[in-house]
Amino acid sequence: MKAFAVLTLAAATLTLSAPAAAQFAKAEDAIKYRQSALFVLGQHFGRLGAMANGKAPFDARLAQENADVVAAMARLPWAAFGPGTDKGAPTKSKPTIWTEQARFKEHAEKLEAESIKLAAAAKTGSLDNLKAAFGPAAQTCKSCHDAYRSK
Amino acid sequence: MKAFAVLTLAAATLTLSAPAAAQFAKAEDAIKYRQSALFVLGQHFGRLGAMANGKAPFDARLAQENADVVAAMARLPWAAFGPGTDKGAPTKSKPTIWTEQARFKEHAEKLEAESIKLAAAAKTGSLDNLKAAFGPAAQTCKSCHDAYRSK
Repeated sequence: MKAFAVLTLAAATLTLSAPAAAQFAKAEDAIKYRQSALFVLGQHFGRLGAMANGKAPFDARLAQENADVVAAMARLPWAAFGPGTDKGAPTKSKPTIWTEQARFKEHAEKLEAESIKLAAAAKTGSLDNLKAAFGPAAQTCKSCHDAYRSK
Repeated sequence: MKAFAVLTLAAATLTLSAPAAAQFAKAEDAIKYRQSALFVLGQHFGRLGAMANGKAPFDARLAQENADVVAAMARLPWAAFGPGTDKGAPTKSKPTIWTEQARFKEHAEKLEAESIKLAAAAKTGSLDNLKAAFGPAAQTCKSCHDAYRSK
């Protein structure tokens, strides 16, 4: 578990220098960008979920590939929730995202942290580790969607 | 330039183990996935283009971040052009993608290779290197769009 912890820490350090200062030509682009990044993330997350929940055979290499994509994608959407991007294209984002920025940022950072743990768990090649990391990551998606995404 | 070449080779080796066997529940998901991945890629590529073409100030750190995202995204769309995904949602993909699979794959691999070179160039921190790598990468986008994307 020591190597696991070191890896997680290294990855966590990396994520703190995540892409910032994203520049979008218009709000519509920002909205499309965050929806796109989250859709790609969701597809790969779903494949991990299928393995974690026994609905697909566990394949350690595929699990690692999918978890790496999830961790990479988890860094991207947040820069596209900048001021003025609450409208401009159809969006399920609740206005509270822009009035509760600190709370929303906490959710975003939680997802980044959980996705890094998930990738580290997948890298161990153990289905049990994957299962243990998948639950908290899925809960992080859900709690943010419950709070900030319209039905 | 030697370190540059070694880095490029290392990255090229990595990309050959790119995510494979993507599983989409339906053609609509595959279409949305590849459009999403290419949209995210395009946003980051556009920021590099603005720097390379002098329309935005050169920022070495931002260039590297954007180029790293481009290289990561460039691996993703191709698994979503599988059999049966030529229709199922609005798409600009031409039917020839599925009848000229070897040629289409060449284009995809060219983009992956150019995006790795672009990321390596960005990592040097030199605007001249970025400019030199940006042109061929942009040409790769264009030649594939000209051949396989409807107007």
